[in-house]
Parts: sequence; structure tokens; C-alpha cells
Amino acid sequence: MASVKFTDCSSSTAAAALLLPSSRYRVRHSVLHSLRSMPLQFAPVKPILLRTTATISHASASPSIVTATNPTAWSPHRKISNHLLLSAMAAETSAKIIDGKSIAKQIRDEITVEISRMKDTVDVVPGLAVILVGDRKDSATYVRNKKKACESVGINSYEVHLPEDSTEQEVLNHISGFNDDPSVHGILVQLPLPSHMNEQNILNSVCIEKDVDGFHPLNIGRLAMRGREPLFVSCTPKGCIELLHRYGVDIKGRRAVVIGRSNIVGTPAALLLQREDATVSVVHSRTNNPEEITRQADIIIAAVGQANMVRGSWIKPGAVVIDVGINPVEDAKSAKGYRLVGDVCYEEACKIASAITPVPGGVGPMTIAMLLSNTLSSAKRMHNYK
Amino acid sequence: MASVKFTDCSSSTAAAALLLPSSRYRVRHSVLHSLRSMPLQFAPVKPILLRTTATISHASASPSIVTATNPTAWSPHRKISNHLLLSAMAAETSAKIIDGKSIAKQIRDEITVEISRMKDTVDVVPGLAVILVGDRKDSATYVRNKKKACESVGINSYEVHLPEDSTEQEVLNHISGFNDDPSVHGILVQLPLPSHMNEQNILNSVCIEKDVDGFHPLNIGRLAMRGREPLFVSCTPKGCIELLHRYGVDIKGRRAVVIGRSNIVGTPAALLLQREDATVSVVHSRTNNPEEITRQADIIIAAVGQANMVRGSWIKPGAVVIDVGINPVEDAKSAKGYRLVGDVCYEEACKIASAITPVPGGVGPMTIAMLLSNTLSSAKRMHNYK
Repeated sequence: MASVKFTDCSSSTAAAALLLPSSRYRVRHSVLHSLRSMPLQFAPVKPILLRTTATISHASASPSIVTATNPTAWSPHRKISNHLLLSAMAAETSAKIIDGKSIAKQIRDEITVEISRMKDTVDVVPGLAVILVGDRKDSATYVRNKKKACESVGINSYEVHLPEDSTEQEVLNHISGFNDDPSVHGILVQLPLPSHMNEQNILNSVCIEKDVDGFHPLNIGRLAMRGREPLFVSCTPKGCIELLHRYGVDIKGRRAVVIGRSNIVGTPAALLLQREDATVSVVHSRTNNPEEITRQADIIIAAVGQANMVRGSWIKPGAVVIDVGINPVEDAKSAKGYRLVGDVCYEEACKIASAITPVPGGVGPMTIAMLLSNTLSSAKRMHNYK
Repeated sequence: MASVKFTDCSSSTAAAALLLPSSRYRVRHSVLHSLRSMPLQFAPVKPILLRTTATISHASASPSIVTATNPTAWSPHRKISNHLLLSAMAAETSAKIIDGKSIAKQIRDEITVEISRMKDTVDVVPGLAVILVGDRKDSATYVRNKKKACESVGINSYEVHLPEDSTEQEVLNHISGFNDDPSVHGILVQLPLPSHMNEQNILNSVCIEKDVDGFHPLNIGRLAMRGREPLFVSCTPKGCIELLHRYGVDIKGRRAVVIGRSNIVGTPAALLLQREDATVSVVHSRTNNPEEITRQADIIIAAVGQANMVRGSWIKPGAVVIDVGINPVEDAKSAKGYRLVGDVCYEEACKIASAITPVPGGVGPMTIAMLLSNTLSSAKRMHNYK
């Protein structure tokens, strides 16, 4: 396999900016965690033009064919006239931005209304328990953000913060307590756990009815199987699909490529897309020529945790791009010394795709919104409340 | 979607032979069950010639590059000379036959030796319990074949045959008994169950340690997840991969297409191929242009239950083809009035593929061999015997 070269494709920084060590500036560890060191091949940038008839027939007619406020079904196979195409090219077509921040706010507002209605009707308030072990600053930040988000929609949050040198049994005891506590409808163990603990044992001990992270293999199995329904779907992939739905992107019958096969994003995202009748291919670290396969996709979900890996040349004109990666790259112009970029080279992709999520502000805000949504669903299910 | 046209591509029958009603002549119902009425598009037959440089570089050098007795790593990307290619074309290249019957026999022999060793060492004999409900002749045949296969390798078999009008609770009671019985290491519920029973409830009641069919969602979930190990893998997809292994077919990094997404074949086959680092695409009833996608594959697993659906034009020269389908088609020349064909048009495919499973005698015999293998593994695990 060719080794990976990192390139910052942004014009605002040097052409070969170095990635910061992810241990120092790790962002959204849960996504990056199992995806690090993935030696996906990295093709040199080639200019992509809408130049062949075959390509044109797949291209989208306009940079604004999807809208959040008034979604219309999107079809990558829409026929467009040469006139429109040339106009779009002349105007330096730029993709519709899929605004995850705004959609997440909309979802939180909907959840707030539902929780208020539930409290008034059956006097039940959903509760989310979070277990944090150790003193990782990034983990503490996520937990704080989740707590804030809970408060903002009216979910009760319960937090246990254990020292780094706690035993696995202590964590299991707390989980067991939350499993039995009827005021807790969702349990979340903040990852990563200290290395002396068995993550699998601990995650498996969360009872499946409260597995709001959707990480339990029983939930993944049900997600994979036709005619079965998972109790919960992992928050990040669920957020990706929710974005597609809310932007009226047609999934059925479309070619979808998921880049990355992690347990928490890539695999469940692929299974979700297949449940929605997409024809799904999964590209991963052992894939030969991932660019060629990705370029066939109408919908791309990139979840590898490598800055700017997916270049413009990987994208079929008119494709919809969901970028899950959040990667820090050095940036001397930023006060923090770094800025965040996705797995997709945004500046190139936005000229080729019909719609794309920005980083930050795309998938990121959706993850917590989906956690709140899962917690509400859990409380509703436990109290048989519709 | 275009409706499917059935064509018998064999020269020994009329060009447009009708499929027999599958209810009368259903064979291997478990495979066909969830795959019926799948309106996959059916492209007209186009002749495929090894004619372009790009194609040639993917073609196999010889019709015999894989052998069962002396397997060598197979690579669809092997470079071949024009001379060899022209010779192969002149000789009407015909694919290596992947002889499932012979491999299954080899596996049964290995299992027999293991069971004998286990009995001698720890005095344990593996036991398989089969529950049959109703009077379907095909189901009775499968159960009888499984029983015979158990006897042939030294596995104890236990059979419960309940009348069609049994209650779900009666079936559950028998499963519960087998769950508690230490002499039973595998439990198999013959499908389909009568329509008044909830298949999901019944399959879920088989304890996961004895789920030798691998149908439990927890097993499917573990199969889908990196770093997790299923206790059992469904027998038919496991048999497909075992054939690839025993024929020395290199899976890692190869493009694989699975046609069909059933819970018992297509989905677990795709997950298995991905675990082996193939780049997997799943083609199904909602896929547009399945031919185009399938033609990109180095490895094809066809599991749709539609006679001769995969034509020669769907296959990349040099690809390896595993045909799971067993479909009856009318044949006046046969004493039974029908004969069995696969999902792949064998006569066309064998001229394009480098290796192919025949029907019958390909995947079929492997399914029972894998059931025996799963039962042995279960007994070994329960008795901590290596």
C-alpha cells in the first residue's frame, strides 16, 4: 500500500501543512479513535471538469437543488442542458452547504417541545447518565457539552466522574446502578477508557434498553438485518442520515460510498444507507484505488479521521458529501495555532458536489442532537408514550 | 424498476424456459425464502471478449490458476502476455470449477477425525438438535440430510418433529429443553415455520451459545464489528468463504460484489468478505444497473434465488464466481421434468470467470459441512477443548 500523504488543500495555509499530533489536539475522539493510522491511498489531485456526456447525465443542475427550509427530492441523475451546465461552470459552481448546526438546533427545539409535552402528560422527564473515567481534557469537554445540551432541552443528566485508577468493577457497579434506576433512560460511557479496562466488557454491561450510543452488538446486528429494528442507532451515523433526510436527498437506489469501517461510524452508516435501499460500497484502508470507487457515488460519507483525504477528483459532479472527520491542522493565523478541517478537501469538493457538510458545523452538532433524540425515544419506549 | 425476465441460458433447453413455481419444486428454501420476488434488472446478453488492454490486465492467465489440492494465491490483477491471452481465447477459455462437493467431503473427513479425537480424549460427542414443524416435504428432506450428515461424522443428532398446528409455545418449550441439555451443542430450527408462528421470537429463543445457524442478531452484530468475534457464522456464507480459502483465492484488497442482501446469505457474506479486507459492494433489488457494478468485481457471490440472472456480460474476465442460488427450471429431458440451475448463467460465466462453483455441487454441499463444523466448534468451546 502507498503511504498516506497529508496535504492541506486550503489556500489559506501552506500547501503541505503538517497535521498536529492528534493526542494533543484531538477533537471528537470517538470518531478518530478507531480510525487512526489508516493507510488509505492518496491520489494526486487531478482537475475534474464536467466534460463528458456520461458525466453530465449524472451532474446536478444547480448548486442549490437541496434546501433545508423547503426540501425537494434530489436526484443525481437529473438531466441537465448544456446551457445550464456551461452557465454553472462559468459561475464556478459551489455546492449547497448542508447546515448541521441549524438542523441540530431545529431538532433540539423539536425535542424540547416533546419533552415538555411528555412531562405535562405523563409526568416523566427523560434522564441521561454519563460515566467519565480519568482526567482527559477532551473527554471532560464532551461530557460538559452533553450535560449542557441535556439541560437546554429539559433532559435530566446524571454524571459520575471516576479517577483514572478506578477498577473496571467500579465502573461496572455504576453501570449496574444506572441499569436499575428507572429515572435513567440512557447510559453513556465516555470513551476512551483507561487502558487497564476492557472496553468491550464495560460497553456490553450497559443494558440494551439504555444503550443510547447504539454500540451494543445486538443493536448493530438488528441494524444489519432486514425485518429487525435496532433499539438505538449510533448517534453520528444517525445524524448523517438525518441530514440527508432533512435536506430531501433521495437515498433509495443511489450509489453510496462510505469511507471508513469503524464500529461507531463507518459500519453503522453503511448499514443505515443499505436499509434505505442505497447500493453501498465500503472503502477502507485496504481498498485499492479508493478514488475510483468513491467517484461512482451519488452520496459519500467520509469517516476516516484524515485531514483532506477526499479530494475534488474523488467526487462525481453533483454528488452529496457528508464529512464526518474533524481533524486539527496547524494554522499560524489562528489564535489557537490550529484549525479544524474534515476528511474531505472542502475547497475542492464544494466546486464538484451538489451539497456538502462544512467542518465544523456539519455532522458535529448532529451527534449530540441524536444523543438527545435517542434518550427521548428511550424514555418514550419505557413509558409506552407515543 | 424494470421487471425481471427469466431466461434459461443453457443450450440444452429452450431459450425462454419457464421457471417452475417455486412452491412446488422449491430447493434449498432457506436460501430462496427471503429473496423471492426481487425485481433486479436484467440486462440483455452482450458478448464479452478479452479485447482491451485495460481488460487484459485484469484477466487471469489460465483457466487453472486455482487448484484445490495445491492452492496458490490467486490474483485477478496478474499480468498476462498477449500470447497467453490469445491462446486462451483460441482454446475457448473455461473457468476452473470450484468443486464444493469434494471440498465438503474433505471437511467432513477432517471433522470425523476431530470428533474421534475429542471422544477419545475428553469423552464428549457433539450433539445437534433439529426442530421441524409441519409436513413440508422439502424441509423433511433437509432435516433427513442433516441427520445423515451428522451420523456420517459421528455427531449425535436429536430430532423433534411437531405437527403443523403446534403452538409457538410448544416450539419454545422444546428449544428451552435443548438450551438446558448439556449433550446438545447446537440447535437448529428448520425454516420456514408455519405462518401462525413468530419466526423472530423462536429464533431469538435459541441460546446464543448453541445458535449454530448463526442467525441470532448478536452473532450478526459481532460479525459486523471490528474487534468482535461471532460465536457462529451462518453456514452458507461461511461455506462460500471457505471455498475461496481452500482454493487459495486472495480476498484482501479485492473488489467483491455480493448480489442479494438476505439475513442468512447476502448480508453475512458481505460482512465476512469485509472482515477479510475485501472492498465490498452489495447489489440488491433496488440497485440501478447491477450489471455495471458486478462487472467491477474480482469476487462475485450471487445469492438472489433467480435462475441465470447473472449473465456473462456481468462478469469481469478472471473474476471468481460463487453461485449460491439453486433454482429449478423446467427441463423436458430430465426424468423429474426439471433441473437445477444457479443464479449465474454457468455456460456464459465459465468462459469469462477464472473459477466458478457449479450448481449443483458448489456451495450446496458446503452448507451442511459448515453446520457440522459449527456444531463441533460449539462442543469444543463448551468443553474448553482445543
